[in-house]
Amino acid sequence: MALSDEQIATLRSRGLGFLADEIEQQNTDTDAMWLIIVAVLVFFMQAGFAMLCAGLVRAKNTKNILLKNVLDACVGALGFWSIGYALSYGQAGGGNLFIGNTYFFLTNFEGNDTYQSWLFQFAFAATAATIVSGAVAERTKMAAYLCYSFFLTAFVYPVVVHWIWASAGWLSAFNAAPLLGTGLIDFAGCGVVHMVGGISAICGAYICGPRLGRYDADGNLVDIPGHSSTLQALGTFILWVGWYGFNPGSTLAVTGGLGAVAGKAACTTTLSGAAGAVGCLIIYKLWSHAFDLGQTLNGVLAGLVSITAGCSVVEPWAAVIIGLIGSFVYTALSELVKRKLKIDDVVDAFAVHCGGGMWGLIAASLFATTENHQAAYGVPPGTPYGAFMAPTGQGHQMFVCALVGILVIWAWVAGLMLPFFYAVNAVGWLRSPPEEEEAGMDISKHGGSAYPDYVVTASVPKSGNTVGVTAH
Amino acid sequence: MALSDEQIATLRSRGLGFLADEIEQQNTDTDAMWLIIVAVLVFFMQAGFAMLCAGLVRAKNTKNILLKNVLDACVGALGFWSIGYALSYGQAGGGNLFIGNTYFFLTNFEGNDTYQSWLFQFAFAATAATIVSGAVAERTKMAAYLCYSFFLTAFVYPVVVHWIWASAGWLSAFNAAPLLGTGLIDFAGCGVVHMVGGISAICGAYICGPRLGRYDADGNLVDIPGHSSTLQALGTFILWVGWYGFNPGSTLAVTGGLGAVAGKAACTTTLSGAAGAVGCLIIYKLWSHAFDLGQTLNGVLAGLVSITAGCSVVEPWAAVIIGLIGSFVYTALSELVKRKLKIDDVVDAFAVHCGGGMWGLIAASLFATTENHQAAYGVPPGTPYGAFMAPTGQGHQMFVCALVGILVIWAWVAGLMLPFFYAVNAVGWLRSPPEEEEAGMDISKHGGSAYPDYVVTASVPKSGNTVGVTAH
Amino acid sequence: MALSDEQIATLRSRGLGFLADEIEQQNTDTDAMWLIIVAVLVFFMQAGFAMLCAGLVRAKNTKNILLKNVLDACVGALGFWSIGYALSYGQAGGGNLFIGNTYFFLTNFEGNDTYQSWLFQFAFAATAATIVSGAVAERTKMAAYLCYSFFLTAFVYPVVVHWIWASAGWLSAFNAAPLLGTGLIDFAGCGVVHMVGGISAICGAYICGPRLGRYDADGNLVDIPGHSSTLQALGTFILWVGWYGFNPGSTLAVTGGLGAVAGKAACTTTLSGAAGAVGCLIIYKLWSHAFDLGQTLNGVLAGLVSITAGCSVVEPWAAVIIGLIGSFVYTALSELVKRKLKIDDVVDAFAVHCGGGMWGLIAASLFATTENHQAAYGVPPGTPYGAFMAPTGQGHQMFVCALVGILVIWAWVAGLMLPFFYAVNAVGWLRSPPEEEEAGMDISKHGGSAYPDYVVTASVPKSGNTVGVTAH
Repeated sequence: MALSDEQIATLRSRGLGFLADEIEQQNTDTDAMWLIIVAVLVFFMQAGFAMLCAGLVRAKNTKNILLKNVLDACVGALGFWSIGYALSYGQAGGGNLFIGNTYFFLTNFEGNDTYQSWLFQFAFAATAATIVSGAVAERTKMAAYLCYSFFLTAFVYPVVVHWIWASAGWLSAFNAAPLLGTGLIDFAGCGVVHMVGGISAICGAYICGPRLGRYDADGNLVDIPGHSSTLQALGTFILWVGWYGFNPGSTLAVTGGLGAVAGKAACTTTLSGAAGAVGCLIIYKLWSHAFDLGQTLNGVLAGLVSITAGCSVVEPWAAVIIGLIGSFVYTALSELVKRKLKIDDVVDAFAVHCGGGMWGLIAASLFATTENHQAAYGVPPGTPYGAFMAPTGQGHQMFVCALVGILVIWAWVAGLMLPFFYAVNAVGWLRSPPEEEEAGMDISKHGGSAYPDYVVTASVPKSGNTVGVTAH
Repeated sequence: MALSDEQIATLRSRGLGFLADEIEQQNTDTDAMWLIIVAVLVFFMQAGFAMLCAGLVRAKNTKNILLKNVLDACVGALGFWSIGYALSYGQAGGGNLFIGNTYFFLTNFEGNDTYQSWLFQFAFAATAATIVSGAVAERTKMAAYLCYSFFLTAFVYPVVVHWIWASAGWLSAFNAAPLLGTGLIDFAGCGVVHMVGGISAICGAYICGPRLGRYDADGNLVDIPGHSSTLQALGTFILWVGWYGFNPGSTLAVTGGLGAVAGKAACTTTLSGAAGAVGCLIIYKLWSHAFDLGQTLNGVLAGLVSITAGCSVVEPWAAVIIGLIGSFVYTALSELVKRKLKIDDVVDAFAVHCGGGMWGLIAASLFATTENHQAAYGVPPGTPYGAFMAPTGQGHQMFVCALVGILVIWAWVAGLMLPFFYAVNAVGWLRSPPEEEEAGMDISKHGGSAYPDYVVTASVPKSGNTVGVTAH
Repeated sequence: MALSDEQIATLRSRGLGFLADEIEQQNTDTDAMWLIIVAVLVFFMQAGFAMLCAGLVRAKNTKNILLKNVLDACVGALGFWSIGYALSYGQAGGGNLFIGNTYFFLTNFEGNDTYQSWLFQFAFAATAATIVSGAVAERTKMAAYLCYSFFLTAFVYPVVVHWIWASAGWLSAFNAAPLLGTGLIDFAGCGVVHMVGGISAICGAYICGPRLGRYDADGNLVDIPGHSSTLQALGTFILWVGWYGFNPGSTLAVTGGLGAVAGKAACTTTLSGAAGAVGCLIIYKLWSHAFDLGQTLNGVLAGLVSITAGCSVVEPWAAVIIGLIGSFVYTALSELVKRKLKIDDVVDAFAVHCGGGMWGLIAASLFATTENHQAAYGVPPGTPYGAFMAPTGQGHQMFVCALVGILVIWAWVAGLMLPFFYAVNAVGWLRSPPEEEEAGMDISKHGGSAYPDYVVTASVPKSGNTVGVTAH
């Protein structure tokens, strides 16, 4: 913890002012170490998403999805360096409610804004961007994807960050006068990251239209399995590891008692992911009589997303409940999207990230305890807390903030991304031609198969079965 | 290091008590950071085990083994949350010699017991559990495996933890009056984790019986190669990385000079793993005239397991010897199990983990130096140390404790797991039917192949060759 | 930061000397934690190189390349334990300009030389060694490779380390009287690691001669694609993650304000890697009209190597330029080596590591700012800095040092490695016989295919096409 002004004055009066400087420097350096390490864990999620998405597409589109995943990290870095961080956290003159306004190209960096802070925030932005790649896989042109990556990381995402995480933001829990006395509790980004990514994903998948053969002539769903369950599992494990940077790391510092907050967040993160997996295992076992690996892995992710908003403010028992319910939310949305809405979200990005994200915001507002809220956010006694935890009538404010957050994120992201994808599609940059899709992107656009030494079978329905090919 | 009571009193008497508080908080936060990060490294080993085991089974059983590896982490988390941590470290009223008794469901957590401590200990429990999955691969039902995961992480493993690592445990080096003045030196879990996992593995593999075709009509061993050496190598590398959390992280803290202890443990861990690899490379080159990748990778693991008990108390030169001998112990046990005992341990889990674990406990008791022992365990001068290092006759106590440890762990784990697997088998939950095994678990129970795009050959002897199919 | 002698005396005079001890211990422990963690990240790069190289060879040589990658870590550990660290940093009696002279087998360790320091430096040595394995892949005998690994990690590499990083080294920026008042700015090893590895790689690949079928009868290049783009992508992502240990970790400590230096290094590392990727994407898109995944991944690596010397001393905008130019340097050297020189460097190790390394040394000498130089190296005001940043005529010294560094590293490494590979080849230990190469190393020398369950096609030109098979 920082020494108080009074304590520093005491030390100076005794000729020991250098101790105050030393202690401040120690805290600064320790916090820098923490932020770098957790940022690296979050960045590692890029590898996780790449492996996960690769595993869930057919062999013939492997290079394509890998390149998209590499490039959203790279384009995202340039986008978040040039504009994104500035719009997120640049707060010249105290900042404004809606958008940041300084630090473009990381110039004139000062005060609490450090390069490790940029690194951590960039890793989050890249996560938001990469959520989309799997949803629109196997049928999207590269150029559109590059435009999308830059647009999201440089503009759409940073504005939401500003609202919810910058101290000037109108919905921020760190605002000096937060909405309804509490602001939106979104500790590690259920709304900021996962909803933004998930909503963008469903917009893209909707505008793209389904893959050739995804629905038969009668409109029935045709299963198109990915080419490697091993890659899906590897990706999920890596994402789980990265989540320990994502959630506990969102303390942003570790001194002043925040180490214990991070420890609790790591514990709840684990339990929610585990409960989500067990939930999906049971749901699909009862339903299909198979022990479904793919759904169990998505259950892990649904559980991890669901605890992302509330990881630091709920108790371990609540994390188990949150993860379990998260697996139901995921399943319901996944089935809704693919069977009723007939939107072809290849990796279930919407169900996992937006579904888990919405439920996570609500869950935090229901289960936040006052002790955890104080430890994690430093709020004074009497601040509103979780609806289910609140015997004294201070329970509805967080819940209302969560609803407000969900609504405005939907409005902002869908309001920008639907027109964006619509326009890109209208000029013919979005959807690949049917013959390229049929042959596979790797042969068509990337110089050859990702696995030239292997005999690959055609695992999916052949052409003639072209219902759903027309983009919206 | 914590300030002494006298030092704190000195500060308070001068009106500087806040410095004592600040320094204590800094140490607490720094140690929290350390424990979270090393716990994440240990958790990453789940990905390593998953890839290793997947690589060592045939393509047709890939989803099955991956699901088991995901689920033992998840079921393990729930088991260690609800009961396991309580039985390990719950010490209400000073605790007792045999078993913990508080903190069920992580309620009433206090004092030194933190959520990051739970995370670290959970990651260890999950490691113990996952060691078994590979041993019984390609022929075991999922339901039995789920029961096993919960039983091990919630009961069998925690009791051993309590004995050896809790300050109340009867065999613990942290006991105020340790056995023979030293207690069992098992710094990072040769006995607690690797022997528990390895013994459970051999019990399971024995009761299951060998895979179809593992032995021919004359009882001769038939090689059944795994489907991907690349996955085995990836898994081994990830495990090696994770071991830097496992061994150095077992300091549990980094302040008060424990950083240097962790540094030494990281050095010895590296050298022992490297020596184990070179040992196995040479053994199998002399024997089979091939440079055997699979055995070299297992040599890395044998070396890493062998140093796990003594990593903090031996010198680098001893680590090289320990790893080298570990590779011989591994090889001897591996050949014994598969050729003489005719037990089908698919991934050599017993030879690596129990073999390396037993040798590691003995090795620590032989090579522990008094200086390292004092630095790592904080013992007073005159405490017994390693048999080979001891010129003053204080050398036999550690060795006797190691033998006692090995015997009681064998008795406890085999005494519980053999009846457990026997009972599960007796009710028909353990062994898959031959036709499912023949077709592969993925087709039979998991909805299809892990690699639907590829042409897979049948790499193993076909039916008709059913010696060994009968479970014990 | 360490307390000054005066500050310590002040504390002692007030009976508070224990505070000085406590603060020193805190700093020591915090720095130990940092060094262990970043060393683990660097070690993780071994997994990255293994996956990358495996992906870039044909399926029939997978076990071979994996075994080489495992063994250079293991042999490297033993080489760097026995001799390498001593020759790098052993400085008995103040050391000498050319080579270290104490600490053999890590005995008599003292002072600032800690076990975690050995771990970090070992991980670097292993990186230098492993760069070569891919360059000489698919045609080299194992015995030669083992000799090479030991020779490089125990002798060739450590001497360069001593010159450039030890305080006694003649080219070292840490020398009390550095060359031209500045010494060579090679913060994380553009010269020390990447040039040493890259030059060794091209020497080996040249002496080995190209793979069978790499050039047709007319001497034209024949493309031999690797067997898995997914493994290449996974390896590249892991390397990127590991680079956050490599570059920011080269602060070697985090206290005393070095946390901020590490943060800046992490930021520039990210931007340069991203710019390198975008550079290569564009270059190859314009050239071949394909979005080339493999080249984009190598662009990431080229960018990361290029910033390795200057990561802590340049601004973010310069990092973008450095990465972008790095992608051009890589492309030019890659094409030169394979088309003009007709050297078969399977993974483009020379173009990435030596190309990026040379440019990186020059780039640091051009773009280093005086503020960053002071923060990262603790140099006094008036020390020479980057040529492009220098309005006051202090700009040429760094540039000259960079040229000197490039020349002496070329002379030392090529001067040793060319004769070494020549001699190994002369006695018949280097190149595999054509029939083994044709069949694949895995069948010939490693007991069978890495993927026995799969049907593998022959993806490359068959025999009859043996131009280039003769080793030099």
